[in-house]
Amino acid sequence: MLADPGTLERSDLVAAPASGTRTVRIGLAGLGNVGQAVARLAPEAARLATAAVRFRVAGALVRDVSRQRRCPLPPRVTTNPEAFLRGHYDVVIETFGAIEPARTIVARLLGRGIPVVTANKSLVAAHGAELVALAARRGTTLRYEASALAGVPFLGALGERPYVAEVARFVAVVNGTSNFILSTIAREQCSFADALARAEQLGLTEPDASRDLDGLDAADKLALLASLFGWGSAAPADVEVRGIRELGADDLAAARQLGGTIKPVVWASRTEAGIDAFVGPAFVELHHPLAALAGALSGIQFSGRYVTDLFFSGPGAGPDITAATILDDAVEAVSSTRRFAKPIRKAAPRLALTAPETEWLVRVRFPGVAPDETAAHTLFAGVGLAVTGANDTQGAVRWLRIARTPRARLTGALRQLLHTHRVDCYAIRSLR
Amino acid sequence: MLADPGTLERSDLVAAPASGTRTVRIGLAGLGNVGQAVARLAPEAARLATAAVRFRVAGALVRDVSRQRRCPLPPRVTTNPEAFLRGHYDVVIETFGAIEPARTIVARLLGRGIPVVTANKSLVAAHGAELVALAARRGTTLRYEASALAGVPFLGALGERPYVAEVARFVAVVNGTSNFILSTIAREQCSFADALARAEQLGLTEPDASRDLDGLDAADKLALLASLFGWGSAAPADVEVRGIRELGADDLAAARQLGGTIKPVVWASRTEAGIDAFVGPAFVELHHPLAALAGALSGIQFSGRYVTDLFFSGPGAGPDITAATILDDAVEAVSSTRRFAKPIRKAAPRLALTAPETEWLVRVRFPGVAPDETAAHTLFAGVGLAVTGANDTQGAVRWLRIARTPRARLTGALRQLLHTHRVDCYAIRSLR
Repeated sequence: MLADPGTLERSDLVAAPASGTRTVRIGLAGLGNVGQAVARLAPEAARLATAAVRFRVAGALVRDVSRQRRCPLPPRVTTNPEAFLRGHYDVVIETFGAIEPARTIVARLLGRGIPVVTANKSLVAAHGAELVALAARRGTTLRYEASALAGVPFLGALGERPYVAEVARFVAVVNGTSNFILSTIAREQCSFADALARAEQLGLTEPDASRDLDGLDAADKLALLASLFGWGSAAPADVEVRGIRELGADDLAAARQLGGTIKPVVWASRTEAGIDAFVGPAFVELHHPLAALAGALSGIQFSGRYVTDLFFSGPGAGPDITAATILDDAVEAVSSTRRFAKPIRKAAPRLALTAPETEWLVRVRFPGVAPDETAAHTLFAGVGLAVTGANDTQGAVRWLRIARTPRARLTGALRQLLHTHRVDCYAIRSLR
Repeated sequence: MLADPGTLERSDLVAAPASGTRTVRIGLAGLGNVGQAVARLAPEAARLATAAVRFRVAGALVRDVSRQRRCPLPPRVTTNPEAFLRGHYDVVIETFGAIEPARTIVARLLGRGIPVVTANKSLVAAHGAELVALAARRGTTLRYEASALAGVPFLGALGERPYVAEVARFVAVVNGTSNFILSTIAREQCSFADALARAEQLGLTEPDASRDLDGLDAADKLALLASLFGWGSAAPADVEVRGIRELGADDLAAARQLGGTIKPVVWASRTEAGIDAFVGPAFVELHHPLAALAGALSGIQFSGRYVTDLFFSGPGAGPDITAATILDDAVEAVSSTRRFAKPIRKAAPRLALTAPETEWLVRVRFPGVAPDETAAHTLFAGVGLAVTGANDTQGAVRWLRIARTPRARLTGALRQLLHTHRVDCYAIRSLR
């Protein structure tokens, strides 16, 4: 057991015998849904086959002491950061979210040599590099496996593994709520509103549903992943972001007819100048690994110079899954000096973001009955778009697959069709 | 840089500054296809974004010095283990395969505090626990990410992560060669012999193809995974093992008609008494993550008490992929004290192996034209088997899906049908 976290030395971190069980004092900075799940799961460590620690939650910093909580309460719960920081902890778990006061508290703790585990994607994306550098200077670690895909521990596969970490491109489903909604529409042919209501019933939505449904959460995670892969710093506001609200049962049925489905995707590829990237619903063929991500699963496929087509998937975020990932980080933080955070480069370049050239799936509403595939082909060829597939239809709407085209050219062509033929189009990207 | 591996101390392993680049001397125990790929890729470490090491291959132990090799040759190449062991190495990479002399050499090195990286599944499955314990006593590590699914770094996600490491069951495609053959038959409707010839052309087969095609390699990996998950020790010879040689284009086409495909699977579930397990071709529905493993990809899905449906996949083994994984292990071995090998329990129980009760896919050859689905249903119900699906057929052969049945009962019923109705059946397991 450590005497005083203020004087923690690296030797304390590695001195524990591999076979003995030591008591680890946890401080919880934040006791919301995830923090409560951490407090509930922490006592179980002592019973796990491969854990050599016994967790004791020593104190918590909260915004509101009086809030009802579904977890054993730590001996000290305070709203005063200074009082919290005076506690003795072997590791602190930060689940506040947002950047402040998380950044200040984490920096103070790391500065004292206390390892910190965080699930805070905003904090890691914006200040991960500086906090990791601070931790390294103080011989401790910042761990953040739960900040990216909380239920899919994949950062540990990259940490100090420089060959596999040479990631050149990735495609991922990172928002479990959006995926649940599109999966539900696909499976039950229900409306977007019904699928959203189901997600709300299951507690899968945040108070501000817009962050999930409009792609903002996914854009944040894209920036985080670009940072974790060592590419540099990307501004989420500069990424092409589309939400999923315009999709319904007909779109998912048409996608199925065309041999695929629609998933809420983040896609990025490193270029000389920066990254090509987009966030939004995309048609994926059924053999694509992302197509298999049913329900609220999330997953990421990445490729690089030495290893291609690695694919990691698992449950989308939920408090218990996130808490298990956080507690695993806490075990690593107190029992290893592995420099988990390596992929964050210190002098991260600011990345220029470009919308990529991809294939497309276009929902086309004709002024009358939809023309047959040949006629549709001719119509679209007239504005420079190559139709590569079409679904069956008997009404005014037909879904067309369009060959690789830059976004600007597609948008211009579709505007022209609206103008000249009163053909109303809605396009999403399409991946092979 | 380390002065003398004979007196290596833990402090040497962690003292290197995070930002500087240090030179790491590699010893190669084995210089076959994988060892040569290691020698080719090792110099690239100095150019990788997140590597803080520069590898120098200092010596190699080989069986035959005169063999032609497609790699830069180390300064010292010897067939004499004692001469090799006198070299100065910061890490040794063992790619001999088989148990001896690998075990003796690895034990000698670990005993001197030199970290070892191995891709040797036989060694890790049979002696992993004792070697890991030896490494721990000497303050060093044995790393073996390449021993299980060489192209899929997933052990690092379990290493010191006790919550996610509570694995209760898994299903995997671990033999890239078998998967390539079945994927090729499915895609091209070719014969088994043609697909095998293609695999041979691509260098995907071992000299003894039987280990791949008859499931022996997969059975070894099942035992290895049971060990790595901390379940205990399983004898590959006690597992139900089936090969893939009896499958052809008609089987894969029928599987497709029935909404799935056939994959070479290892499946295991921890029970009170031991494990339920099998190795062999299995029907999987198209939405199953294993169904998406095209070509020679391999992958594993596992579930436990805290995290369910984790799925990791990537390229099946090949020398370059394996070498990248090995070199990543080598970087971790020299820059971290992470106790990577934790899931191997020291006193591993000997596991009793039981064949599980599953659904089945049965190829049924009738003496004349196949009866319609209703008649087939009645015929099989007469021997106690419930038909849950049938493909279309116009000939004498029909594929039937059979509800959950213990293997012994299925085998008895099919024998009875052969006897009473001259109906010849070949059954594989079926997974949802």
